[in-house]
Amino acid sequence: MRICIAQLDYHIGHFEQNTQKMLDAIQVAKDQKADLVCFSELATCGYPPRDFLEFNDFIRRSDDSIARLATAADTIGVVVGAPAVNPVVEGKDLYNAAYFLYEGKIQQVFRKALLPTYDVFDEYRYFEPGNAFLSFDFKGIRLAITICEDLWNLGNENPLYTICPMDELMPAKPEVMINISASPFAWDHAEERIHVLKANVERYHLPLFYVNHCGAQTELLFDGGSLIFSPNGLVHDEFPYFMEAIRTYDLNDVIQGGSQREQPKEKNRLIHDALVMGIGDYFRKLGFKKAILGLSGGIDSALSTVLAVRALGAENVRVLLMPSPFSSQHSVEDARALAENLGIQYDIIPIGNIYQSYLDVLQPYFGDLPFNVTEENLQARNRGMLLMAFSNKFGHILLNTTNKSEMAVGYGTLYGDLCGGLSVIGDVYKTEVFDLCRWINAEDEIIPWNTIRKPPSAELRPNQKDSDSLPEYDVLDPILYQYIEKRQGPQEIIAQGYDNATVLRILRLVNINEFKRHQTAPVLRVSAKAFGMGRRMPIVAKYLS
Amino acid sequence: MRICIAQLDYHIGHFEQNTQKMLDAIQVAKDQKADLVCFSELATCGYPPRDFLEFNDFIRRSDDSIARLATAADTIGVVVGAPAVNPVVEGKDLYNAAYFLYEGKIQQVFRKALLPTYDVFDEYRYFEPGNAFLSFDFKGIRLAITICEDLWNLGNENPLYTICPMDELMPAKPEVMINISASPFAWDHAEERIHVLKANVERYHLPLFYVNHCGAQTELLFDGGSLIFSPNGLVHDEFPYFMEAIRTYDLNDVIQGGSQREQPKEKNRLIHDALVMGIGDYFRKLGFKKAILGLSGGIDSALSTVLAVRALGAENVRVLLMPSPFSSQHSVEDARALAENLGIQYDIIPIGNIYQSYLDVLQPYFGDLPFNVTEENLQARNRGMLLMAFSNKFGHILLNTTNKSEMAVGYGTLYGDLCGGLSVIGDVYKTEVFDLCRWINAEDEIIPWNTIRKPPSAELRPNQKDSDSLPEYDVLDPILYQYIEKRQGPQEIIAQGYDNATVLRILRLVNINEFKRHQTAPVLRVSAKAFGMGRRMPIVAKYLS
Repeated sequence: MRICIAQLDYHIGHFEQNTQKMLDAIQVAKDQKADLVCFSELATCGYPPRDFLEFNDFIRRSDDSIARLATAADTIGVVVGAPAVNPVVEGKDLYNAAYFLYEGKIQQVFRKALLPTYDVFDEYRYFEPGNAFLSFDFKGIRLAITICEDLWNLGNENPLYTICPMDELMPAKPEVMINISASPFAWDHAEERIHVLKANVERYHLPLFYVNHCGAQTELLFDGGSLIFSPNGLVHDEFPYFMEAIRTYDLNDVIQGGSQREQPKEKNRLIHDALVMGIGDYFRKLGFKKAILGLSGGIDSALSTVLAVRALGAENVRVLLMPSPFSSQHSVEDARALAENLGIQYDIIPIGNIYQSYLDVLQPYFGDLPFNVTEENLQARNRGMLLMAFSNKFGHILLNTTNKSEMAVGYGTLYGDLCGGLSVIGDVYKTEVFDLCRWINAEDEIIPWNTIRKPPSAELRPNQKDSDSLPEYDVLDPILYQYIEKRQGPQEIIAQGYDNATVLRILRLVNINEFKRHQTAPVLRVSAKAFGMGRRMPIVAKYLS
Repeated sequence: MRICIAQLDYHIGHFEQNTQKMLDAIQVAKDQKADLVCFSELATCGYPPRDFLEFNDFIRRSDDSIARLATAADTIGVVVGAPAVNPVVEGKDLYNAAYFLYEGKIQQVFRKALLPTYDVFDEYRYFEPGNAFLSFDFKGIRLAITICEDLWNLGNENPLYTICPMDELMPAKPEVMINISASPFAWDHAEERIHVLKANVERYHLPLFYVNHCGAQTELLFDGGSLIFSPNGLVHDEFPYFMEAIRTYDLNDVIQGGSQREQPKEKNRLIHDALVMGIGDYFRKLGFKKAILGLSGGIDSALSTVLAVRALGAENVRVLLMPSPFSSQHSVEDARALAENLGIQYDIIPIGNIYQSYLDVLQPYFGDLPFNVTEENLQARNRGMLLMAFSNKFGHILLNTTNKSEMAVGYGTLYGDLCGGLSVIGDVYKTEVFDLCRWINAEDEIIPWNTIRKPPSAELRPNQKDSDSLPEYDVLDPILYQYIEKRQGPQEIIAQGYDNATVLRILRLVNINEFKRHQTAPVLRVSAKAFGMGRRMPIVAKYLS
């Protein structure tokens, strides 16, 4: 038997395009002489469709896609993920299902049993868990189909579920495991994925065909990295990251095994490629081409601009340099040098007059009150307004350039530098921003070294440095990582050797700035715990604050 | 036996204050000669604690609260909701539990079986469902304890769950039902709550003591409205809405029944009181006193200002009137009249000079391009920046005054009139805004009648009216209601008699403006489906758009 894996990029709700893409892939699979082609989880509607699943109209359109795919599944078997209506009135109205299509019709429907409901996942919000564990025979071979999470309760110290679908399936003596997934990217996730799937292969001694989504869905990035395992636990093949691919395997070759064809997993490259895909897909799927950014001369906007150029092309990226009375000359020079290195359109628009017009209007009310964060925010907001004016007039999407460390502690101005339709590096800590910039500069000086080497500053008052109000980033970032990614509390973090007062101060800053993160752009997710849909905190609370 | 119901307002994560409040209530219950006092669901930590539940430190503090309450539960029994650690490694790490405390210690722990995971609820994200159904004997009477949703699978046409906890509890022959809840307000929910609880009482023929939260938690409003049912299905007592109360009942009186003491449920009053509580609690719990708003002379900012004054006091509300070159004279006069009626501080700050300073700077880039939405947004943003400058300088929270109809179709400017820390009427449709204003004006002209009667306009270009770009609100709002609240698709809405093109246009507007709602303030929730945590949509999608 020859099994084809189609790793594709779907567009949520775009049934027509998703279906056509799969019909085309079925033809490719036929050309590759495949007996069976596998598409990923919820492929008809894209993943995650979120509350669109609550619309009967949405489900009807998915059913229509399945009907069209079934017609194409004439001489070839098709496995494809889609929502399936629960025929029973009790329980949730849908199942997260895998359809097996063959000879022009739906042969069988398999229901996902383990419904991830944590971090970015909300599956129990929509789906009833499956409790029938069915395998099926196709051309004399018995196949066990599972859906994503169904395989993820092995290889964990603290399993989230009390049942194990493959254990339930084994009495029927399946010969092949197929898993259709929609498993989002995090920079260390590809490694973990192989670990978990390997644990399954080693437990059941069966070959495994695992197909994943690729492409970006708002903040979620899907890297693909579909996998074929030989029953001896070796990786027979690993699909490329961040791109579509369709490949067919002879089952006998896979069973014989022997190869170990994994791709290198380099943190900087993975994050870089993920962000480039995330920007590009956001624009393409929304029907936009052009981005605008504010370029400050600092490292965050520099990195964001490089990524935007790689995603959209230099001809589609425009930057504004908007010095205020507190900007240093080197900032403008560094920003200009970057823009020229990248060959992008840039304009220098000093904000002094606009800033002064606000000060004049506010003077009767503010009187002699001292310069404070109000005036700092005002400058940031003057810039945000100018960028939005260009965005509105010329049809750009404004890209936000705030990093994760700043997002965490609220070091940014709401409606100012926090403006933007998409946060490019909001899931990249400042120390990781430095790493990425050095990695980008490995061969050529794309980002001026001065931008990378100078002390970070918001330049909103004379001689300001980030370290005036924040700990150094190599102290700040590990504490943030422990609190945000690792869910460690103050006791645990202090026990790791960090200064008591510093830890409490940072945790308080994170918590009291929840209101800012509530109002910021979606953040491209590259870590296991990003700000956004996967991290849900009350704004009004009194905990560590 | 005498049973006390303590309907209290908790502060999420504020263990010290929540515990002290319950200790005080235990003393009141003792004074009222109660044998048993009942607090609501997750009372130690407040509801919903969201991802704070993932911190062991947070759970430890809750455990400490339980220990303190147990000490106070010496001669009185205490039922109180709190998270409980799951002792088994498989499954989620916590249960949503009810503790029974007596004679100084934890006597028993009851686990919630039905975990709401829809709309604003995420309980399966954190909790393992309970599957042991225990009752307990106290002073010779057998009590059945359930937690909120556990009673909500009766009285629905389409139950979400396949089991029914009270059915499981009945074989032990309980004599009293106690339900501890955290059931958020919607204006039609009190009616539904009585319907569902009554269905339980009528099925099991048992008296029911139901205790709910009151108070606001960011966007969620809890009305209280705790209920005592006689076994004959009559409401023995209903607690007041939107305030704390502690009342004790003799079980024999409740069993005898006979009264039907329900409160009137008037839509305008309920929404009004809910929003006043929501504003007040948001400020009190965050430690703020003062609000600022932009007053346009229109109905939305007028209503929001009245509500703010009722929540915070006239002395704590300040408004800015910020006419642009396109503002009409009557708008300024209407706004001024309202401010004077309310006795609040107001200042008139024309934005013309600031607006012009932007136009001057932008002229070299915009050239002869025509006036469009860019310049409209600019005016809205100039106002937003001024309001934020006051907010920053004087420590106000800026209140957002956008209504639900505008939020739905994106009729508002990001970083402009969509600025603010809290959206007051973002869950109130425009037609409901009119109703509320007329209701407020029933006796005195608080809001100038001219504000209510004139055609709605954003006044961002000459002679602009909302109806230039939107259908009339009495057409728009019912279509929005069908789509947002009722989850009806285009076919179903058109089948109700609405114009085909209008429906498709409105649904498209709702969907393509998801990006704006992603970046706006939390919206006080008064309907069954509000924008915010209870409505989760992808930004990047191609569905009805």
